[in-house]
Amino acid sequence: MEGDSTLQLRVFDLNCWAIRYLSKRRQERMRLIGDVLLQECFDLILLQEVWSEQDYSDLKVKLGGCYPFSHYFRSGVIGSGLCVFSRFTILDTLLYQYSLNGYPYMLQHGDWFCGKSVGLVIVKISGIIFNVYVTHLHAEYCREKDAYLPHRLVQAWELAQFIRHTSKAADVVLLGGDLNMHPDDVGIRLLRGWTGLQDAFAEAKHFEGCKDGCTLIPNNCFTIKTELLPFPLGIRIDYILYKAISSFMVKCEELKTTTGSAPGRDIPFSDHEAVMATLHIRRQREAASATLSTAEPALVDVVTEARTEVGVGLRAAQRQRYSTGRLAVLALLLLLLQAVAVLGTLAGLGGQPFPKLSFSLLAFLAVAILLLATGLHLFHTIEVKMLQGTEEQMRMALRVLQEQP
Amino acid sequence: MEGDSTLQLRVFDLNCWAIRYLSKRRQERMRLIGDVLLQECFDLILLQEVWSEQDYSDLKVKLGGCYPFSHYFRSGVIGSGLCVFSRFTILDTLLYQYSLNGYPYMLQHGDWFCGKSVGLVIVKISGIIFNVYVTHLHAEYCREKDAYLPHRLVQAWELAQFIRHTSKAADVVLLGGDLNMHPDDVGIRLLRGWTGLQDAFAEAKHFEGCKDGCTLIPNNCFTIKTELLPFPLGIRIDYILYKAISSFMVKCEELKTTTGSAPGRDIPFSDHEAVMATLHIRRQREAASATLSTAEPALVDVVTEARTEVGVGLRAAQRQRYSTGRLAVLALLLLLLQAVAVLGTLAGLGGQPFPKLSFSLLAFLAVAILLLATGLHLFHTIEVKMLQGTEEQMRMALRVLQEQP
Repeated sequence: MEGDSTLQLRVFDLNCWAIRYLSKRRQERMRLIGDVLLQECFDLILLQEVWSEQDYSDLKVKLGGCYPFSHYFRSGVIGSGLCVFSRFTILDTLLYQYSLNGYPYMLQHGDWFCGKSVGLVIVKISGIIFNVYVTHLHAEYCREKDAYLPHRLVQAWELAQFIRHTSKAADVVLLGGDLNMHPDDVGIRLLRGWTGLQDAFAEAKHFEGCKDGCTLIPNNCFTIKTELLPFPLGIRIDYILYKAISSFMVKCEELKTTTGSAPGRDIPFSDHEAVMATLHIRRQREAASATLSTAEPALVDVVTEARTEVGVGLRAAQRQRYSTGRLAVLALLLLLLQAVAVLGTLAGLGGQPFPKLSFSLLAFLAVAILLLATGLHLFHTIEVKMLQGTEEQMRMALRVLQEQP
Repeated sequence: MEGDSTLQLRVFDLNCWAIRYLSKRRQERMRLIGDVLLQECFDLILLQEVWSEQDYSDLKVKLGGCYPFSHYFRSGVIGSGLCVFSRFTILDTLLYQYSLNGYPYMLQHGDWFCGKSVGLVIVKISGIIFNVYVTHLHAEYCREKDAYLPHRLVQAWELAQFIRHTSKAADVVLLGGDLNMHPDDVGIRLLRGWTGLQDAFAEAKHFEGCKDGCTLIPNNCFTIKTELLPFPLGIRIDYILYKAISSFMVKCEELKTTTGSAPGRDIPFSDHEAVMATLHIRRQREAASATLSTAEPALVDVVTEARTEVGVGLRAAQRQRYSTGRLAVLALLLLLLQAVAVLGTLAGLGGQPFPKLSFSLLAFLAVAILLLATGLHLFHTIEVKMLQGTEEQMRMALRVLQEQP
């Protein structure tokens, strides 16, 4: 980009809901997504929940002409589900897997198996370095009693820290993804305050799409209507956020969302709506300030609020660690007791021998409980450590914020 | 730092071997380490294997006067073992946990439980921004048949990538730690080539300590002599590496190692020798080149060599994934067979009923194998994904290297 000219960048973001065997009409929808991306020719495409590597490969083949560069981020058992397609060369990539991501035994929620992460791709367009982040945070299954809030806050914090530490040489930072947080939630305020990212929806000159920019709406045939009952318009949990560092300025010219069914079709792309932003980037005379954009006293409140929630999670994790540890010890004691009884019988000390079947069953049960409880105890020990680590980091952030003149 | 003045920085690095209940004379040695750190008053202290948070807290209290700033990195079941003490304010921290770190079932090696990571602390000294990294990579238990080489290479790659992506705004990068690699190993060449870090031992104007800078020596009463038989002088696996970015220049004035027993005592600090570097940092007129320091054709060879080793690990992981998957399926089939037999007996189809005890034992055995094999299958699935991801990243790096003019 030379002189005062403006670079226009069109960004597409979608949680594709493409879970093999589970998501309805997956292949049809993935074809539809590919068709639209080919027609529209965006500059950058940020996708989540592409769990099947085959789906990614099919897209890669289909989109190769228009988007010759792409990256699929691998992590966890199923994968991260994250991928990026780009019209411009991807110079480098990095993946950061969040340290906490739900519980392996919550099989019905399954987040743990996905290895939720943030992926970074670095792209240079017209001489401007873009750090493009794509992510997907832990889902919220019950807003009233959100057991995953501390984990999601740890993720939001790690996301903010990862962006801050890796974007120092970037001219423009873009983040797209399903953050699973409403616009006023503490996690979003923390992320935005701590990174200085701006919300494309709030900043857009022109907006077209679902009311309030919602991306999970009752009007989409794949959404679960009961979950949206408290929100008749739907909720906004998918975002495109951005900021300019150094001497650039970014403006959101236009923001669009899909509104249920895909244009000219009877089905939507996904259970989420796509978010499409048109950004204008131009060099400005005076370098933008590199400091945090949010007023710092407000930021102190947000970090304090987040830290309190992490503390609540920490105490719950400590309780779980204690009770699973106690269960493991009890199972071990039972096993030892049985061993003593067997030895006693063998030495001819006891009366009648025990009924073999129920004795063996009891021993097996004790072993099973011992193994399970030990595994859970180790898991909750890790959870406690990571929550403590985040709390400690937030404490340090507060100190730095408060010490600033 | 004003004008042409030189900043002198003294850095201390040690793998403390402080494992509760396992490391010999741990408390005595930790006290000794604390005493020496107090006496000598370094600027930065990078410690590994401080597995007990109590040991860290004791050090923090003891060193508080001389080193008012410190950070302990929490991760994994036991912790990361990493901590940093500093005479200067720590502005920010970040932890990156390596995606692969051995196997949970290799209990005798235990690396998996440590959550091996790289910790970053950012320190500003005389106006110069230092990105200080401390890390500890997976141990090498058998050099001839090193089953952990692919995992250690993934770690070396992730370490290099993490440093590259997070150090772009730093003036000086420092890395200290137990890398568990000999100076000519492919992992060290990869790390140094891909980040441009220089080896303080190789660059030091003056050196004092163990021959060849070894840090694991037969002359230390805690080392296992049989392991060092092929290396009569010992091996060098603990490093201080550095580089200057932007317009600074770093020189290593002096490098020292301890040589077995601590000065005036009958025991060493640890089973490793400490590494102590005196660095001189000065502003230079012309900005240092930000490009990779190693000649790129050589770097292409190193990345290719590392990628080949990761490929070997990938194929081994794929075999493990397959065999554990097959075992799980066999256990499931056995359970189904038993269920059919029970149903047959209940329906009066079979002849004599099975002996209850052995039948139940067999069922429990099948369940145990099913659970274990499924767990291992999931684990090796993650391993395959991460090895594939690293191979893919290395492929991209090779493409970028080869495309450069």
